Amino acid sequence: MKPPCGVITLTTDFGLQDSYVGTMKGVILGIHPEARIVDITHQVNPQDTLEASLILENAYPYFPPGTIHVAVVDPGVGSSRRPIVVVTPDHLFVGPDNGTFTRIFEAHQIEAVYEITNESFMLANVSHTFHGRDVFAPAAAHLAAGRRPEEMGAPVRDPRQSEIPVPRIYPDQICGEVIYIDSFGNVITNISRKQFEKTVRDHGMRIQINGKEIGRVHRTYQDTEPGTALALFGSNDLLEIAVTGGRADRRIGAGKGDTVIVDILLDVKRPPRETGFDY
Amino acid sequence: MKPPCGVITLTTDFGLQDSYVGTMKGVILGIHPEARIVDITHQVNPQDTLEASLILENAYPYFPPGTIHVAVVDPGVGSSRRPIVVVTPDHLFVGPDNGTFTRIFEAHQIEAVYEITNESFMLANVSHTFHGRDVFAPAAAHLAAGRRPEEMGAPVRDPRQSEIPVPRIYPDQICGEVIYIDSFGNVITNISRKQFEKTVRDHGMRIQINGKEIGRVHRTYQDTEPGTALALFGSNDLLEIAVTGGRADRRIGAGKGDTVIVDILLDVKRPPRETGFDY
Amino acid sequence: MKPPCGVITLTTDFGLQDSYVGTMKGVILGIHPEARIVDITHQVNPQDTLEASLILENAYPYFPPGTIHVAVVDPGVGSSRRPIVVVTPDHLFVGPDNGTFTRIFEAHQIEAVYEITNESFMLANVSHTFHGRDVFAPAAAHLAAGRRPEEMGAPVRDPRQSEIPVPRIYPDQICGEVIYIDSFGNVITNISRKQFEKTVRDHGMRIQINGKEIGRVHRTYQDTEPGTALALFGSNDLLEIAVTGGRADRRIGAGKGDTVIVDILLDVKRPPRETGFDY
Repeated sequence: MKPPCGVITLTTDFGLQDSYVGTMKGVILGIHPEARIVDITHQVNPQDTLEASLILENAYPYFPPGTIHVAVVDPGVGSSRRPIVVVTPDHLFVGPDNGTFTRIFEAHQIEAVYEITNESFMLANVSHTFHGRDVFAPAAAHLAAGRRPEEMGAPVRDPRQSEIPVPRIYPDQICGEVIYIDSFGNVITNISRKQFEKTVRDHGMRIQINGKEIGRVHRTYQDTEPGTALALFGSNDLLEIAVTGGRADRRIGAGKGDTVIVDILLDVKRPPRETGFDY
Repeated sequence: MKPPCGVITLTTDFGLQDSYVGTMKGVILGIHPEARIVDITHQVNPQDTLEASLILENAYPYFPPGTIHVAVVDPGVGSSRRPIVVVTPDHLFVGPDNGTFTRIFEAHQIEAVYEITNESFMLANVSHTFHGRDVFAPAAAHLAAGRRPEEMGAPVRDPRQSEIPVPRIYPDQICGEVIYIDSFGNVITNISRKQFEKTVRDHGMRIQINGKEIGRVHRTYQDTEPGTALALFGSNDLLEIAVTGGRADRRIGAGKGDTVIVDILLDVKRPPRETGFDY
Repeated sequence: MKPPCGVITLTTDFGLQDSYVGTMKGVILGIHPEARIVDITHQVNPQDTLEASLILENAYPYFPPGTIHVAVVDPGVGSSRRPIVVVTPDHLFVGPDNGTFTRIFEAHQIEAVYEITNESFMLANVSHTFHGRDVFAPAAAHLAAGRRPEEMGAPVRDPRQSEIPVPRIYPDQICGEVIYIDSFGNVITNISRKQFEKTVRDHGMRIQINGKEIGRVHRTYQDTEPGTALALFGSNDLLEIAVTGGRADRRIGAGKGDTVIVDILLDVKRPPRETGFDY
């Protein structure tokens, strides 16, 4: 664990219409006036902890060591689900124990997880409906001010993990699915560059989504004619389908959960210009 | 009045598409580089000063003493409506004198109100259309930098107050209305927990909205089956109607201004498990 | 060129749904922890570099000298378009060389433009799809931390400029067009107050848009009855059409690119109350 650097990030499904996010920031600045607060997003699909997990996973590695990441997508607020702090070598994560941190658990050496039960780190009156304000914002502010995670409460041995859809890999096929549509309409799959390269090697291949064939893997969004769907590896090294100058989700009618097939043509070598995954 | 803590909040109906909000922040940082600026929301329903008043009332108590709250929902910009500073024991409020601060006036001991007329606290060229940039942002920045409210201009004795819908209370009924729909679709009424408890006491009761009956008052959003409408007291201690895992506004077809009736069944005692307002 | 003041602004078409904007802020704070980051907007119409140019032009003059403005509307990311830094007397601008800075080039004395090629100012692995994170955010952070623009790379002599629609001016007519619709629905044209006053002088005139006649030029949004379209000069001194208490774009059916005609009635003097452009 690194000492706190003073940066606190916020990821929620609260939207920006209401006062919820501003209120959390007020609470943080009241406890730790030097905090530098950064919004990751407040437009997580309501109550979708898996989406929060994906968004957080994409963003947090770019923050300085000692950052505290608060993620509040919390359909079970007020129920018995635990509030937790997750300690990794470089970052702390604060939020409900409902699967939001699943991809953190998968990607990282976890040093410890603590339940937040110490009321001296909460607001005086904890509501049943808004722990972002009453529990998570104050905990993060106290951690940023230098309090230790182990002061928050007892260790948690069994933090909850969501089932994350992983691609099935066969010798001649990768069978993945769409896990996210970004605001440009790019269709992002769960097939990583590493899995892809290891499985496809120098064979020919064919990508299909919803029965529509997508051409070879390109390097940039501009590599085809405007309006054409193309495959590429996006900024998080996941296979995505995009449309040059347009929205892929509408063009190919794709949504979250749709199946993406990479057929590997074992008896075909890719033409030389495509060797070496020149994308 | 507390000394300024350097935090300035912004509440407007400017949206986030245009450069208006960013421009205000530039003006503030040009005058007071140490300011820490927090957005409460910029998505107040256009020109709806009452909604701004409600949002501000929910958020500001969670900010540290010495915070300056700028609220610019300003349909009368350029007309004769006055720009004002409102001084309360812990916070300052800056904005047009058009009712936006009504709920602040109701909730608080007001120490003073001043009209902002001193041009040395405004930008050099004051437009007729954007006082957020030209008048309110600079005034807030100068106040955050330590200038006194009374330097801004003459005292105002009659700040404008909007008519706020208050519930009518009868021995056997509370007749309130919907005052806000949040971004989760929760339907928030003007009936406070205090009024409710004082009137209903240990009697049975029945909540109705638009002719639909809502069950007893619950503690959390998760207390019923998904898809079921339930009543609870939300994070601001107002009676609200929610739907577990869904949007109450759509489920029960409710909108702002709709009537909410709490019928008190004077000859019925609530069953023991509901005694003591166990929500 | 002024020394950096520590403020970095961001203007993009990334929206606020995804983690893209938050990630850029993480990168900046990792390099220059003292940076104060201000969003101008992240809701530029996707890939519309001209709109980004207009929004930036409206906002940046209100920021303190030494501000660094990052603008990433970048349909050509990963292609051969150059990443650049533009140096003006008071501000630095960082982004792709694709026309986004056109209105900066027009409005200002440009001291220098440099291509960003020095990899020591980029992230270790530069993707083909997200230079906002990998190139522009780090460059801006290093500049805010005091590195000199000329360290970024070689001078650029021919930065790209977009064609900007300018009004045609005749003795008896100004023929302009709608260049922006703001989030209030105000219809903003490319006719400046200066051009208007110089051409119309003390003659009568008539403003038309899409064949609909708009009355005289008013001073504020409140100068007519609710629901009436009126012309005025907005906060950036451009002629705009607004509707008191409503949305002008819907009321008059106007969109970007629509023609706006000011007919000058050379044989008519404006009535005295309108003399001197009393708006």
